[in-house]
Amino acid sequence: MLIKKNYQSQPQYDNCTQKINVPFIEYQTLSVDTKNLRLNSRLQASLVWEDPELGWNTSVYPYDHVALPVNKVWTPELHVTNGITTTMKHSSRDLLVNSNGTVKHSVILTAEVNCEVNLFNYPFASDACPVAIQTWTKDGCGTLLNFDDLRMVDGTHGDWETYGVDLLNQREDRNYILVGLSIKYTNPFITLLLPTILIVLADVVSFSLPLGGGERNSFKVTLVLSFTMFLIILNDQLPGDSQCSPIIRPHFCVCLVLLVLSMLVSMVLTRLAKDGSFIFSCCSKHSVQGKTGKKEKTDDEESKADISVVQMNGAEEDSRMLRKVVNFLEALEANTLESERHQTLANKLDKIYFWLYLIFGTIYFLAMTTVMVHYKCTVNHFDFWY
Amino acid sequence: MLIKKNYQSQPQYDNCTQKINVPFIEYQTLSVDTKNLRLNSRLQASLVWEDPELGWNTSVYPYDHVALPVNKVWTPELHVTNGITTTMKHSSRDLLVNSNGTVKHSVILTAEVNCEVNLFNYPFASDACPVAIQTWTKDGCGTLLNFDDLRMVDGTHGDWETYGVDLLNQREDRNYILVGLSIKYTNPFITLLLPTILIVLADVVSFSLPLGGGERNSFKVTLVLSFTMFLIILNDQLPGDSQCSPIIRPHFCVCLVLLVLSMLVSMVLTRLAKDGSFIFSCCSKHSVQGKTGKKEKTDDEESKADISVVQMNGAEEDSRMLRKVVNFLEALEANTLESERHQTLANKLDKIYFWLYLIFGTIYFLAMTTVMVHYKCTVNHFDFWY
Amino acid sequence: MLIKKNYQSQPQYDNCTQKINVPFIEYQTLSVDTKNLRLNSRLQASLVWEDPELGWNTSVYPYDHVALPVNKVWTPELHVTNGITTTMKHSSRDLLVNSNGTVKHSVILTAEVNCEVNLFNYPFASDACPVAIQTWTKDGCGTLLNFDDLRMVDGTHGDWETYGVDLLNQREDRNYILVGLSIKYTNPFITLLLPTILIVLADVVSFSLPLGGGERNSFKVTLVLSFTMFLIILNDQLPGDSQCSPIIRPHFCVCLVLLVLSMLVSMVLTRLAKDGSFIFSCCSKHSVQGKTGKKEKTDDEESKADISVVQMNGAEEDSRMLRKVVNFLEALEANTLESERHQTLANKLDKIYFWLYLIFGTIYFLAMTTVMVHYKCTVNHFDFWY
Amino acid sequence: MLIKKNYQSQPQYDNCTQKINVPFIEYQTLSVDTKNLRLNSRLQASLVWEDPELGWNTSVYPYDHVALPVNKVWTPELHVTNGITTTMKHSSRDLLVNSNGTVKHSVILTAEVNCEVNLFNYPFASDACPVAIQTWTKDGCGTLLNFDDLRMVDGTHGDWETYGVDLLNQREDRNYILVGLSIKYTNPFITLLLPTILIVLADVVSFSLPLGGGERNSFKVTLVLSFTMFLIILNDQLPGDSQCSPIIRPHFCVCLVLLVLSMLVSMVLTRLAKDGSFIFSCCSKHSVQGKTGKKEKTDDEESKADISVVQMNGAEEDSRMLRKVVNFLEALEANTLESERHQTLANKLDKIYFWLYLIFGTIYFLAMTTVMVHYKCTVNHFDFWY
Amino acid sequence: MLIKKNYQSQPQYDNCTQKINVPFIEYQTLSVDTKNLRLNSRLQASLVWEDPELGWNTSVYPYDHVALPVNKVWTPELHVTNGITTTMKHSSRDLLVNSNGTVKHSVILTAEVNCEVNLFNYPFASDACPVAIQTWTKDGCGTLLNFDDLRMVDGTHGDWETYGVDLLNQREDRNYILVGLSIKYTNPFITLLLPTILIVLADVVSFSLPLGGGERNSFKVTLVLSFTMFLIILNDQLPGDSQCSPIIRPHFCVCLVLLVLSMLVSMVLTRLAKDGSFIFSCCSKHSVQGKTGKKEKTDDEESKADISVVQMNGAEEDSRMLRKVVNFLEALEANTLESERHQTLANKLDKIYFWLYLIFGTIYFLAMTTVMVHYKCTVNHFDFWY
Repeated sequence: MLIKKNYQSQPQYDNCTQKINVPFIEYQTLSVDTKNLRLNSRLQASLVWEDPELGWNTSVYPYDHVALPVNKVWTPELHVTNGITTTMKHSSRDLLVNSNGTVKHSVILTAEVNCEVNLFNYPFASDACPVAIQTWTKDGCGTLLNFDDLRMVDGTHGDWETYGVDLLNQREDRNYILVGLSIKYTNPFITLLLPTILIVLADVVSFSLPLGGGERNSFKVTLVLSFTMFLIILNDQLPGDSQCSPIIRPHFCVCLVLLVLSMLVSMVLTRLAKDGSFIFSCCSKHSVQGKTGKKEKTDDEESKADISVVQMNGAEEDSRMLRKVVNFLEALEANTLESERHQTLANKLDKIYFWLYLIFGTIYFLAMTTVMVHYKCTVNHFDFWY
Repeated sequence: MLIKKNYQSQPQYDNCTQKINVPFIEYQTLSVDTKNLRLNSRLQASLVWEDPELGWNTSVYPYDHVALPVNKVWTPELHVTNGITTTMKHSSRDLLVNSNGTVKHSVILTAEVNCEVNLFNYPFASDACPVAIQTWTKDGCGTLLNFDDLRMVDGTHGDWETYGVDLLNQREDRNYILVGLSIKYTNPFITLLLPTILIVLADVVSFSLPLGGGERNSFKVTLVLSFTMFLIILNDQLPGDSQCSPIIRPHFCVCLVLLVLSMLVSMVLTRLAKDGSFIFSCCSKHSVQGKTGKKEKTDDEESKADISVVQMNGAEEDSRMLRKVVNFLEALEANTLESERHQTLANKLDKIYFWLYLIFGTIYFLAMTTVMVHYKCTVNHFDFWY
Repeated sequence: MLIKKNYQSQPQYDNCTQKINVPFIEYQTLSVDTKNLRLNSRLQASLVWEDPELGWNTSVYPYDHVALPVNKVWTPELHVTNGITTTMKHSSRDLLVNSNGTVKHSVILTAEVNCEVNLFNYPFASDACPVAIQTWTKDGCGTLLNFDDLRMVDGTHGDWETYGVDLLNQREDRNYILVGLSIKYTNPFITLLLPTILIVLADVVSFSLPLGGGERNSFKVTLVLSFTMFLIILNDQLPGDSQCSPIIRPHFCVCLVLLVLSMLVSMVLTRLAKDGSFIFSCCSKHSVQGKTGKKEKTDDEESKADISVVQMNGAEEDSRMLRKVVNFLEALEANTLESERHQTLANKLDKIYFWLYLIFGTIYFLAMTTVMVHYKCTVNHFDFWY
Repeated sequence: MLIKKNYQSQPQYDNCTQKINVPFIEYQTLSVDTKNLRLNSRLQASLVWEDPELGWNTSVYPYDHVALPVNKVWTPELHVTNGITTTMKHSSRDLLVNSNGTVKHSVILTAEVNCEVNLFNYPFASDACPVAIQTWTKDGCGTLLNFDDLRMVDGTHGDWETYGVDLLNQREDRNYILVGLSIKYTNPFITLLLPTILIVLADVVSFSLPLGGGERNSFKVTLVLSFTMFLIILNDQLPGDSQCSPIIRPHFCVCLVLLVLSMLVSMVLTRLAKDGSFIFSCCSKHSVQGKTGKKEKTDDEESKADISVVQMNGAEEDSRMLRKVVNFLEALEANTLESERHQTLANKLDKIYFWLYLIFGTIYFLAMTTVMVHYKCTVNHFDFWY
Repeated sequence: MLIKKNYQSQPQYDNCTQKINVPFIEYQTLSVDTKNLRLNSRLQASLVWEDPELGWNTSVYPYDHVALPVNKVWTPELHVTNGITTTMKHSSRDLLVNSNGTVKHSVILTAEVNCEVNLFNYPFASDACPVAIQTWTKDGCGTLLNFDDLRMVDGTHGDWETYGVDLLNQREDRNYILVGLSIKYTNPFITLLLPTILIVLADVVSFSLPLGGGERNSFKVTLVLSFTMFLIILNDQLPGDSQCSPIIRPHFCVCLVLLVLSMLVSMVLTRLAKDGSFIFSCCSKHSVQGKTGKKEKTDDEESKADISVVQMNGAEEDSRMLRKVVNFLEALEANTLESERHQTLANKLDKIYFWLYLIFGTIYFLAMTTVMVHYKCTVNHFDFWY
């Protein structure tokens, strides 16, 4: 039925280069691995080329075109130059040959491309990655691609959105598809930004909790541990340090340190509110204790003396007893006064710290937001072509 | 035994198109990836076609049908058009040829199909996905499928239930199976909805905890952190932002913000209940402190004076002492009164907030439930056929 | 050395059906996927069949048997009918041919079988799954299996134990191995049941904690959150809703709701113990506050009056002061009395709730245990054979 | 260049068995799956055998040896008998043939072996697993291996250390490599044992926390929940129940139950310290309440009576008032006394429980350690050879 | 078109060894598995060799070079000697042949290499791993590689940075690429070091929390549990025990033990501050209780006696009552004094412990830092070449 004249070898004449037309190419982003910065693509290309030896005389064999099994004729091989892995599969096991030798076929390419996406403004990152499509060519021999039409399908799956594709070339044989990617910020915003903003907000408002009750410190340590958890989640989602590493990571570290600092200050002020001194001044505390101890001892002795003379005379005794009661109340009052003085001091310091925290925190946030919005980091994506 | 006349090439006569009958097709959903919105299907199709050159004269070779190895004859190739990956395997290594050239065979297709399922009403989502089955055909040459019977097996495995399949076509050569999928809501309901409803309920009831004891704030922060955990779990299970992104995600965000707001209000009211002012009004607090301080000082001086004249006269002294006791108690009472006034104010505000929270929360919940039940979001699943 | 007369095609004579003896088959369960209800099996079958054309005259070629490469002769193909994926590999690259045409070979089958295991009594579930072994046969042509001996190896690996295998058939050409599977309950018992039983027990005993101290509520919220964690772990291990879905899931939901209810009741009773009213009765509370306020005011005025006439006369003044002290103590006592009355009421309600909780909880547990032990849910495993 | 006389079929003469020399074999453990008890091995074997028909006359073709493509000559096939999956790959695409017919080649075998490692003494487990290497042999036909030298490379990767390999055989054709494996105990010790020992230690020391403050119970519940977490981690790392299941699992369960028991006792004693009774004795409590209530009422009435006669006479009135104060203080003192009696009782019970806990706990720990160190559990690893 | 003289067998003449030039080789690190210490590499090598029999007379066939299908001619096979898995793929399906027999081709090698990276100074580890590239050679027969140029692409992906590659050789046929790897310390620093340093810091500062309030113990137990979590995360990221196992693991263990010790001391001191004794001295406590009890009883009896004689005479009665009040206050004062003495003792011990902890902790940290910075651990990476 069909003579297998010349199979499985590239048609070669005077010119060693064979031209392959690609009238239609379909691009699809399968997935983007944010952690390893890799882009999985799928390309479906229809190919048209001439293989004169496959033609026939329609007078001998009276059909215009014929279907041939794909593994019996030579087919060009496309690959993605900057792909770590690239596989080409025939989209069908038959291809169509015209009587004049024109061959029509279509292939499916899947490639995993290394693309150092600019994540500086994460979670609002967006960048363009090249997917370079080439065929085999060496020393003037080989095949040359001639692209025509490019279409993108289904760009909204997964964590990244493909907002556009463009067919460009750097040299005649260096064609690439520039894939515009932008991260879908909803998920990272809800999972990372929203909770952390709420945590920092809660930390600021937690200054309204009273110092002494023990509530504030436990509240703050809860916030710090939650924040650490989010820092770990963030690190799980982001790649390691690279050229344009996301600014959000150092920002989170600064926030964590601020939260811890606020917790530590709160703890030290709790001590101050109770004892009127920090633990580090070990002597001043002792003297206070000693003084109180002494006074109480004298009170004690006095009271014992009183008890011994209690039978003496009624009225004087009465008044003495009453004085004792008064002394007790006075001591109580003095204690309260002392502790209140400590508290007042601690509260004042607490307030000063709060305002410092609020002011510098606000300034820092504004600066960080400005950097995040305005700074653009650029990555050279074409380092695979020297 | 059998002459291999014509093998591994499609039979081609006057008409370049070959008809393939598919008397029976069996559909099975292997799994549905909710996160990436992909559907794994398995199709077992029995095929019947005519290959006249494979026929024989039963007088020469006296058997009605014969079994031939599948890799020695041409077989049609089915593929799933909208499949990211589609593989066809022969279900057996032999096929049956009749003496008149009728070939009977069966193949197994597995395909991963991109299907943007409408998840708007998640976890009560249900949608239909097309699985387009085609063969190779180009410029009038190729094969044409002729479907007959479709059967579904085992639709209840995994997170999604396949409630029905339908064989439809858009054009003569565009056949597809419409697979009806509905999520099994038990798992997400128990894992996500039930706990979050209970958390919001607990937050509402937590208003019954007393303001000052420190219990309410720690309770509320626990609730907020648990809710955040569920928000993260939800995000792990749902795909990124898309056309019909689930309404449950913004809903959860609103709930989280409400919980945090309720926590912050509670914290601020705790301060109010204790000091009668918020931390932000830094002056009013000072004056209160000053006043108390002054009063105590005068008391102090007075008491010192009293002590100096304690030896003077008994009765007057007695009454003075008594008066001191009374003064102490009065100061205590005044303090209690003041703090009670603060408490009353805080309680009143707390109650107002609670009722606001309850009313607006209820309205919001009703509105959200209405939207979730009645709004239908539609997705065009046929964008792979331009 | 050996004439390759007839290779790679099934021997076909008068009868189109070829008989394959399977003298020995070895079954091994590789793994059971509880989440997706899939069974991975490995079968090693030794096959014996006759291929007369492969025989030779021992007088010409004086050997009894000869080893032939497996890809040069026809071999039967076994497959698992209800397998989602089934692959057959030759266990060696050579097979043994006797001079009379008897061929001895052995093959390895691995199959992933959909088996809707009855998990109703999880974690004490046990069921039997069929693994149907068939060869290609169509319209009377093909091969027929003739099983002999079945042996099981290594049934104790993984989460499921294979307690027995049985070779059965429904029709002459419908052979299947019935694999008896039972879950190893140690792991789920320790990971799920033990902790949840301890949590519920701790919840019951937590009623012994005093109502007012704030301890009980925080204890109960910790228990509820831990229980939720276990509910999530349970859901991760169990498949979605199906015919015989495990009863342990609704049971866990009921337990969670009971725990939350007990927590909410505890919170409301805490409020009752403190204020003598629930937050919802906004008026009664106010009046109490008002009463106290008024009384205190009168006390206040009285005391101010007293102070103004303090210089008047000693004795009367003394008694007045004393009366003041007494009044203060009386007010304190009254307050204590009031709060004690609230507390008593709350304690009584708490006790009533506790007994109700204990009684209904016990009844529920007994009922649930009875259902779990006695109810048997049956699944039809043969729906793949219509 | 070289005549392909006889290719792709095993050389067969009078004796149907072919001898294969294995002068050198290199063993490497790739990984050990502790959860599923599977051993991934990689074997590199150099093979030497005689294929007389491949020899040539050096006078005709004047080379001593020649390199032949591996897929053009027959090569023996090795496989691992007890391997679930076993693949043999040629380490090179060429092999060396001597003029006398000696063929030199080397192959790489990777196998996944089921090996029920004895994990009784986990995390100090160590055991030996056989990796049986065989070739195809049936009814006296086939190949026979003749091993020489065995070397192990790189035994320290992963969680298990390969401390030694030994080449042994059970029968002439049953060669196996006995791989000595011992778990690296550092990781499980740090991740599991150290934290749990510290938790139990903290539980013992937590008895030093005061009963009534609410601190002890919350501390103990934290410990219990952490312990549960470690129990879950343990279960994730260990396989299901098997012949020699690790003793550490029941041990952990016992520890968990002990911790929970200690928590529950602590909770009940907290109640006892406060009320002098357990919640279960609902009546005794009431009477106490009633008594106090009555006494207070009489006090109340008395005080009311006093107030009505307060204008009567000064001195009597004064003393009455004083008596009132004294009564109040006496009631307070009685209350304190009562609560102190409860506290003493609770403390005594607490101390008794602590000593019991300490003594029985120590005995249990010693017994468990003895069992763990001295008991040896043995598993038959050769059940794949009947 | 082209005569296929000699295909698929290595060209062999007088010298059995064939020289292969590698003018250009491109190295890329795909990933480094820190847990299993494996390095995934990708190498793209262009090869040039002479196959005289493929040459032709340009007068007969007038082309300089011709493209041949790669599976029709012999190609050398490269493999990575120390690779666990190594696969060679042709980068194109055609290769270029010159008329003089020079063949130009390029291949892609992917290999998984076992490389026991020195992780002693983790997370600041850096080491060099050899990737040995060899071809098949046996007994003087085979191919020999001749390298020229080496280039590295894209060394910054993933957790490890490839800072340099070097082409070295140990023997003429033992070429290897020395790949310089250094861990990117940002991620482990933020995820592990920063939080643990903050936890230890918080533990030190937590000594400023008051002993008795219950706050310090709960704070410390939170810190301990968080630290355990980080220890588990660390262990998940690090490999098991090996030659140069990271020093950070024992360091973390020491920190954990220190934290637990500090928690236990804090708990015991809490008891001491309350009771003046540890729980272990069970008798001393009793006597204190007894004493107090006795005194109170005598007070009680006395007071009862007083009440019976309350009607006797006014003044004496008054003074007695007053004395009673005084006694009550004295008892209260004595109690306070006693508890204050306990507290002072506990505080003193607490302070001593704090300073010890601080001093020894600081010394330990300095020593550890010195060891981490200065000690270099070396691993022999060439144990695969005996």
